[in-house]
Amino acid sequence: MYSRLKRVLIGRPMKSSEIEGEKLTKLKALAVLSSDALSSVAYGTEQILIVLMAAGFAALWYSIPISIAVLGLLLILVLSYRQTIFSYPAGGGAYIVAKDNLGMSTGLLAGGSLLVDYILTVAVSSSAGTDAITSAFPSLHDHRVMISIIVILILTVMNLRGVTESASILAVPVYVFVGAIFVLIISGVIKYATGGAHAEVPEMGAALSNISLFLLLKAFSSGCSALTGVEAVSNAIPNFKQPAERNAAKTLMLMGAILGAMFIGISLLAYWYGIKPDEKETVISQIADATFGRGILYYAIQGITALILFLAANTAYAAFPLLSFMLAKDKFMPHAFMVRGDRLGFSNGIMFLGVLSALLVVAFHGDTESLIPMYAVGVFIPFTLSQLGMMIRWLRLKPKGWVAKFTINTIGMLTTLTITLIFIITKLSHVWMVFIFLPIVIMLFYSIRKHYDNTAEQLRINPLEDRPVLKGSTIVVPVAGITRVVMNSIGYAKSLTDNVVAVYVAFDDESMERMEQKWEEWNPGVRLIVLRSSYRSIIRPIVRFIETVEWKASETDHITVLIPQFITKHWWQYFLHNQSGLLLRTFLINQKNIVIATVPFHLQK
Amino acid sequence: MYSRLKRVLIGRPMKSSEIEGEKLTKLKALAVLSSDALSSVAYGTEQILIVLMAAGFAALWYSIPISIAVLGLLLILVLSYRQTIFSYPAGGGAYIVAKDNLGMSTGLLAGGSLLVDYILTVAVSSSAGTDAITSAFPSLHDHRVMISIIVILILTVMNLRGVTESASILAVPVYVFVGAIFVLIISGVIKYATGGAHAEVPEMGAALSNISLFLLLKAFSSGCSALTGVEAVSNAIPNFKQPAERNAAKTLMLMGAILGAMFIGISLLAYWYGIKPDEKETVISQIADATFGRGILYYAIQGITALILFLAANTAYAAFPLLSFMLAKDKFMPHAFMVRGDRLGFSNGIMFLGVLSALLVVAFHGDTESLIPMYAVGVFIPFTLSQLGMMIRWLRLKPKGWVAKFTINTIGMLTTLTITLIFIITKLSHVWMVFIFLPIVIMLFYSIRKHYDNTAEQLRINPLEDRPVLKGSTIVVPVAGITRVVMNSIGYAKSLTDNVVAVYVAFDDESMERMEQKWEEWNPGVRLIVLRSSYRSIIRPIVRFIETVEWKASETDHITVLIPQFITKHWWQYFLHNQSGLLLRTFLINQKNIVIATVPFHLQK
Repeated sequence: MYSRLKRVLIGRPMKSSEIEGEKLTKLKALAVLSSDALSSVAYGTEQILIVLMAAGFAALWYSIPISIAVLGLLLILVLSYRQTIFSYPAGGGAYIVAKDNLGMSTGLLAGGSLLVDYILTVAVSSSAGTDAITSAFPSLHDHRVMISIIVILILTVMNLRGVTESASILAVPVYVFVGAIFVLIISGVIKYATGGAHAEVPEMGAALSNISLFLLLKAFSSGCSALTGVEAVSNAIPNFKQPAERNAAKTLMLMGAILGAMFIGISLLAYWYGIKPDEKETVISQIADATFGRGILYYAIQGITALILFLAANTAYAAFPLLSFMLAKDKFMPHAFMVRGDRLGFSNGIMFLGVLSALLVVAFHGDTESLIPMYAVGVFIPFTLSQLGMMIRWLRLKPKGWVAKFTINTIGMLTTLTITLIFIITKLSHVWMVFIFLPIVIMLFYSIRKHYDNTAEQLRINPLEDRPVLKGSTIVVPVAGITRVVMNSIGYAKSLTDNVVAVYVAFDDESMERMEQKWEEWNPGVRLIVLRSSYRSIIRPIVRFIETVEWKASETDHITVLIPQFITKHWWQYFLHNQSGLLLRTFLINQKNIVIATVPFHLQK
Repeated sequence: MYSRLKRVLIGRPMKSSEIEGEKLTKLKALAVLSSDALSSVAYGTEQILIVLMAAGFAALWYSIPISIAVLGLLLILVLSYRQTIFSYPAGGGAYIVAKDNLGMSTGLLAGGSLLVDYILTVAVSSSAGTDAITSAFPSLHDHRVMISIIVILILTVMNLRGVTESASILAVPVYVFVGAIFVLIISGVIKYATGGAHAEVPEMGAALSNISLFLLLKAFSSGCSALTGVEAVSNAIPNFKQPAERNAAKTLMLMGAILGAMFIGISLLAYWYGIKPDEKETVISQIADATFGRGILYYAIQGITALILFLAANTAYAAFPLLSFMLAKDKFMPHAFMVRGDRLGFSNGIMFLGVLSALLVVAFHGDTESLIPMYAVGVFIPFTLSQLGMMIRWLRLKPKGWVAKFTINTIGMLTTLTITLIFIITKLSHVWMVFIFLPIVIMLFYSIRKHYDNTAEQLRINPLEDRPVLKGSTIVVPVAGITRVVMNSIGYAKSLTDNVVAVYVAFDDESMERMEQKWEEWNPGVRLIVLRSSYRSIIRPIVRFIETVEWKASETDHITVLIPQFITKHWWQYFLHNQSGLLLRTFLINQKNIVIATVPFHLQK
């Protein structure tokens, strides 16, 4: 049943050798890895306008120079990550770069930030997409948590089916979105150029007394939230078809170009059409309304924008399992994250991401907006560290033309550091949790690493000296009566050693004598020890008995306890047998250094 | 931690020999076993008045002859159960009597009815007590399910502490209740006799055209709901101090006398004070108001009445575990119900009752009133069967004076049968579930019995012929590398037999060759088989390998699979180890007839 359901949902298992078929072409990779970045077009310009509006309508002209500055930062980031791709063709982005150049702790800070961030991405994107749906169908409002979780479930299952398959499905809406936004921009520009727009427009370059540098920086940093997701490509190089780094670099450049064009286009149109930020209507919606009116095209753009918000989560599904694989390879995360599932994806990472983001959605009742600033900080910390790491690298290696590369990374580092600081200063009340959470995550990484190191040390042997040691053997067989199970167990034990002792726990003198007598009559060639339990416990007397055996023989003998287990034919019959064997086993295996052998008895009826 | 909490809640474990100290004196037994019956005084008269009110105020005089009829039935039941006590001094009531005289299926019908009934009793009583509390404190209304469950939890813990201890605590409110009701009755009678009551009273003996025999029967049967709980004493004879049956009989008579006096007293006062049933105020409350006014005495009576409704549940806690013990002894219920807990009570029965009644309260959101008719039917079916059983017994044995005894039981049987039928006819919409539920319970009893019989048959050996069989031994050791765990396992295996084979699962050719080479260098004296897994599964190749071993050697050899298990020092470290050993173990033990030996490796750090 379970495995059939799994086949339907996930698909047939794939051989390890099929992994090449799971690699992504540039077009599919662009769809999977850029949906996060591209979707920010839906709210990037709006974030700038909201901050500027605090200084009044006339201040909105600043959105144009600020958008150009964001564009400049995008260019720097793209160039800088392009350098990273070629320097670290095995992928890993900020974690690897920081670890390699700035030391392990800094690497873990970058890696931990990104992991937390991917979880936030999924929670925030799925809630944002759900908000778009419930704005259209208000009757669904009470079910928003449920809808978000269903979306997360669908994304999880799709990603468990494998990278290529989910990329093929997801590519369509991503390209439709890109197409739709370009149609909007081109139509809007034509309409404006032909004099079709008649809105009041803030005067460009007007000097304003009430605008401060702080406000402008805040607007700039808000606009930079459109740049989250740019790092995804550099994390996911191993997912690309060969030549992986070349393809990854081209994909990154293409993504930067599309993102930049869409972002500046939307910003210009918003300015030309004199659009004010409005709590009830998004900027995209206002532009589409002004360009097309409330026709089919308007609703198509609204629909695809809602869908792309869901798909933004998918970038995290591509990047999180790869990053956790790398951390697991370095023993900072559980080994389980290194295991490839039936469809060759890192299924444990995919499922972990799904479960944690679903928990976040439930914990915040679907109101994940307060998580957005934290999410931005979580991106810009690794951005900064990765640039800094590249700077150190250039200084260290000094390859040909390193000054130009060093300059790019230095500008990038300074800008992203500034943005990080602005975020922290302007939104401390939203982001303080990061400073509690990140140290915990890093501590966790180190504890895991320490456990693995300790385990390895305890497991290590010297193949030249250490050899298996042969000992004698004492087998203890707890018996509950004279039955076929007991006969089988004793037959098994006697086949292995002559040192077999049966133990029986009696609750009263009568059953004690009766058992001794019956045993003598049966005479299976094994000594029977009868223990008397005044407190009707079976476990305690047996454990005490085993302790005396241990005390006498553990130096010379391996001690084995043979425990029979009834395997019933139907699940409900399980409850008809007192599972004292199971209790005894659990206790012994956790407390004692003896072998527990389970002899199954399969009931036929 | 867990065991310290248990000690605080339940108390120190008691020796089996302390059981005599857990037996009940007559006074304590009366408190524990009659709280159900006595509490029905709180609503019995009211039930009669509600039915009669359908024919108008003038019809209320019928409550007096009907109450006398109920009293008569009480007398018959008490006499009849007294006979049962002496005939079946080991206890068991309806189940034992019916089983013994009417055959097993009838016995199970009686037993099943009673078991279901005890669960209903706890659910209904705890909800009724909660209703009394929330009437007094309406702000608690939203927490009624929680309050009921806390009460059930308290009762469960008290009963787990032991029969005597709970009896000592519960005796106080029961006797206070009895005292309070008698004070009420005596004061009421004095006030009436001294002319202090001036209410309009329905004319005694007035002929009414609109009253039917059906209505009168319905009123009678409703009044008979006051008799539920009368059977409890006869079920619980083993809980009495010696001479058990004599003490039980006296307790039963005393209970009958108190119950009868209280019931007829309340009915008379209700008539004399011209009390009409009122949805908003109980009959007891009206009588207390008329007698004392709304003073301290009034509120004391209201409070103790609420408390006694909770305690009614305790009768079920005394009777359910004993009855389930008897059914378990006859193999119709799981063995677990025969195990005496730390405090010598049948703890599994107590906990089972607590959990099931709590689930009922949750399922009905605390509105358990609709369960009351079902609960009455569940009592009168075993009443009738038990009387019928006694009739057959007298006919069969014909002891001295059997005709009188036979007559008592025949009258009792006919009356209880009539009441059962009236209940079924008048409240079919409430009780139809019984006819689905009871057959299921009886089927369950038989399936359990059949499973135990089948198991016994499969386990049975002939001690004169069947002897343990010695065989050779093949031990399979799955290994994951060359580590201390593997060394220990191989040392253990080689100590037992020369026939040891190690198995390694490789995911690629490279690790395959590397392992083979390292093994050869180490040379532990055991052959290594390397399996290639294209699908990255460890379990499947090993299972297939074991199947070939089975096919070759299962005739001549015991096959053992040695599985290492890491025991981590802290619980969270458990998740750092892929538990493939556990999965392999679960699969093998359920599917194969081979021994699984677990070699624990206790990590020290």
